Amino acid sequence: MRDFLSDVWYVAGWSDEVARERPLARTIANTPVVMFRDNRGELAALRDRCPHRFSPLSKGRIANGVIECGYHGLQFDRQGACVANPHGPISKALAVESFTMAERDGLLWLWLGDSAKARMESIPDMSAVQQEPSNSHFRGHLSVRAHHLLLVDNILDLSHADYLHKAALGSGGTMTRTRPRIEEGEDFILAEWFAAKEDKGVAIMRAELADPNALIDMWTSVRWHTSGAVLLKVGITPTGEPRDQGIVTHVIHAMTPQTPGSSHYFYRVWRNYQSDNAEYSRMMEGAVRFAFEGEDKDMIEAQQINMGDGDFMSMKPALLAIDSASMRARRLFDRALAAEDMARMEVARSGPMSA
Amino acid sequence: MRDFLSDVWYVAGWSDEVARERPLARTIANTPVVMFRDNRGELAALRDRCPHRFSPLSKGRIANGVIECGYHGLQFDRQGACVANPHGPISKALAVESFTMAERDGLLWLWLGDSAKARMESIPDMSAVQQEPSNSHFRGHLSVRAHHLLLVDNILDLSHADYLHKAALGSGGTMTRTRPRIEEGEDFILAEWFAAKEDKGVAIMRAELADPNALIDMWTSVRWHTSGAVLLKVGITPTGEPRDQGIVTHVIHAMTPQTPGSSHYFYRVWRNYQSDNAEYSRMMEGAVRFAFEGEDKDMIEAQQINMGDGDFMSMKPALLAIDSASMRARRLFDRALAAEDMARMEVARSGPMSA
Amino acid sequence: MRDFLSDVWYVAGWSDEVARERPLARTIANTPVVMFRDNRGELAALRDRCPHRFSPLSKGRIANGVIECGYHGLQFDRQGACVANPHGPISKALAVESFTMAERDGLLWLWLGDSAKARMESIPDMSAVQQEPSNSHFRGHLSVRAHHLLLVDNILDLSHADYLHKAALGSGGTMTRTRPRIEEGEDFILAEWFAAKEDKGVAIMRAELADPNALIDMWTSVRWHTSGAVLLKVGITPTGEPRDQGIVTHVIHAMTPQTPGSSHYFYRVWRNYQSDNAEYSRMMEGAVRFAFEGEDKDMIEAQQINMGDGDFMSMKPALLAIDSASMRARRLFDRALAAEDMARMEVARSGPMSA
Repeated sequence: MRDFLSDVWYVAGWSDEVARERPLARTIANTPVVMFRDNRGELAALRDRCPHRFSPLSKGRIANGVIECGYHGLQFDRQGACVANPHGPISKALAVESFTMAERDGLLWLWLGDSAKARMESIPDMSAVQQEPSNSHFRGHLSVRAHHLLLVDNILDLSHADYLHKAALGSGGTMTRTRPRIEEGEDFILAEWFAAKEDKGVAIMRAELADPNALIDMWTSVRWHTSGAVLLKVGITPTGEPRDQGIVTHVIHAMTPQTPGSSHYFYRVWRNYQSDNAEYSRMMEGAVRFAFEGEDKDMIEAQQINMGDGDFMSMKPALLAIDSASMRARRLFDRALAAEDMARMEVARSGPMSA
Repeated sequence: MRDFLSDVWYVAGWSDEVARERPLARTIANTPVVMFRDNRGELAALRDRCPHRFSPLSKGRIANGVIECGYHGLQFDRQGACVANPHGPISKALAVESFTMAERDGLLWLWLGDSAKARMESIPDMSAVQQEPSNSHFRGHLSVRAHHLLLVDNILDLSHADYLHKAALGSGGTMTRTRPRIEEGEDFILAEWFAAKEDKGVAIMRAELADPNALIDMWTSVRWHTSGAVLLKVGITPTGEPRDQGIVTHVIHAMTPQTPGSSHYFYRVWRNYQSDNAEYSRMMEGAVRFAFEGEDKDMIEAQQINMGDGDFMSMKPALLAIDSASMRARRLFDRALAAEDMARMEVARSGPMSA
Repeated sequence: MRDFLSDVWYVAGWSDEVARERPLARTIANTPVVMFRDNRGELAALRDRCPHRFSPLSKGRIANGVIECGYHGLQFDRQGACVANPHGPISKALAVESFTMAERDGLLWLWLGDSAKARMESIPDMSAVQQEPSNSHFRGHLSVRAHHLLLVDNILDLSHADYLHKAALGSGGTMTRTRPRIEEGEDFILAEWFAAKEDKGVAIMRAELADPNALIDMWTSVRWHTSGAVLLKVGITPTGEPRDQGIVTHVIHAMTPQTPGSSHYFYRVWRNYQSDNAEYSRMMEGAVRFAFEGEDKDMIEAQQINMGDGDFMSMKPALLAIDSASMRARRLFDRALAAEDMARMEVARSGPMSA
């Protein structure tokens, strides 16, 4: 069964990972992709496979804004057209598949499917990243040996932090007790939790309030897109105070499918408090890295090992109230997958492309 | 083909490996199992997989004698019943499969099959372990990447020590020359070798006699059970002297199936001579570890690599006289496997469980 | 699909790798082989698998010119006949498959197929190895995780050196510009390139001419045999001078199939210039090792990863003029494979061996 969507904007990395001097290789949804920039700095994404001998173009170099295969010197431009063949004429066969890319909010967005359907308006909105001074930001990238939807389940059910990340990121049971309001869009799920008059709350944030012992209000929102891109916000205020005066932590998560057995996990964290406190930044970054790259990765990979090649839903999990948002996400994902399959069959049946 | 028995008492480890503070995870016969103790110290064994999201319970903690999942805090008792769900009501689906356990002779015994058939009397008798002062004991546990019956073949044909463990454990050809008397029980094979008036014998033991150059009598017995548990004894006396005045080395071996491609190998060694000689103990432990964890493991894994996925008997080995005990064991094992399969089919045909 | 020929002389290693004291284990064309010498120094090659318990004979020892299994002491001679069984009579079943071997030009030649077809005259001619003083020679052996024909493609298209090995071994485009004359034999392809009045040429060699800036003539020849054995020569002279006064570098390459996913790569390099210059030798050896064991291995393994299990030709590569020799080689290889298959079918149909 196909497990990856084609017609979505995948997060493929961070903008500054693709410099003019060197290409970036990354496997996205089982497709090896090489990303580079032309002389004007425009992004390009090609299938990372020379049509001549199938060696990875990413082992080559950038020469005058085109990419040169390191094996025999063939050169390809942003559209994947061969622009230099030192060994003879340029035949039609000398072309590489190219993909649509965009760059927004510091992220590389990659569209693997039909480029005619790739609209800039449908890039998930991560503009919140521009709100805070960059000195409070940190980010990471890891590969998790698990199905991408297991990572999605993890983010859409934040009660797990009360147990798995108890010490620093847990909410002392607040997330466990609170049920979300769920909104569903064409390609996203938005889940919002609100808890009032709590004497607990995310430990690492509560400590930053003027009176760390006061009752608080806490709101959490997670917007997940079918591509795996997620924007998460957690805010707290002393009880009754307006939200826009609260302290807020933002996280971009992107659980981009990598191979059938592994998923990328990109994350970026920033906040509107203690922005200039380098020591606090170090402490928070340490706590978050330990939680994401240690605890989450370890638990999700162990879950996958226990599941083997089994499909999660087919294995009949005993679902709980905390799974409501992730179950909505899985259903939306399945519908998107089915819609893509249907569209392909229609093309195959009616169109001249079926020949 | 199924390669593992269900209705046997498997050695799953050593009693003291399961403390009250921490669970023990181990895969036995392809089943991930978590073992822990309740508040009274009673052993429990559950399938190591939370019914909610299939994460391993062994990554959690013991709280008041029940095990708590480290992902979302569900708690399960010895019987696998859910006793706490912080996220809502306890539904029937929130249950974990539990297995029967026993503790005897310092070993953890695990019954993966039908608990109604698990009789304490059928636990293999390893009470010999209590005979000698514990300061002469040492033990080990390793995982061997080979089918469990290759390890059984190895133990039921001790002539291999004359070649593979020549220096310390070899008998100078005594085992090679001697044929065993074989007794067969419902679930065991007992093989006994006796050699009289030998001028060789297990090197490491002969050196301990009053006159190391005297002729000796040597007897060896290996009792193998279908679960893979083995009790081995080697004794020597100056020729003609009564056995109960001889020096004896005991070994428990347990070749417990782990996965289709690997087997546990537990061993415990003790003796009735030089019990208080720490230096001798160190020497003997060194020699045994080298033989078991170096030479045996290396040879058996190389054998398995050479066999690939092939079934040993189907590959038509050129069997020798020294293989008589292990061939009896393989036939007994196959009959036990066939009997289990037959019993299951009967249940399926006649019973209401077939629905 | 079968991917390995049987009736060819494979390079299995270097003569001096098999000493009288120790056997040499190597997997050739998916067959585990143990090589050793008898008391007269004659080479033997047996299937590296004892018929008793399938353990590798190579884990044993050489005793009086026969090989003794390290597990139970069975001994086998050069023909694979059992000559000692410490455990009883020698039955017919106690025999190991033996293979035909030859030793020539410092190489071990192994014939895995029908020994009746193994003619010494068909051993690829590598006598050029005897022409130069041995102090200019160096050699290497590595295992490459790629199909053996990808390594063949690499050697039969030397234009790759202009890009992949640009710094030291590249010819500054000379190989890229020159087309070969191709000669085809029953079991070999000989490709010869000639370039006159070049102002470039293999960098590392040009520097050795009396006038490194003079125009040169350069000739290159690659003789590839279906077994994967290759003799390569590159010579240069100042333009117009006779070839036999030129400086020449020789290389034996042997791309011997190992397993379906990996290939041996043996190489030996020597030259007729700077033979006694130890510093030059070190420099050249460093450059060659970096090119072969670093750049070639890395590129070819990446190519294989990109191809997965796919067959190269079925994946429809966009072939170039530089691929003419390797395409001839692939066709010759396919014909040889088909001829072997056909011969087997005939035997099966007509002969008594079909029973």
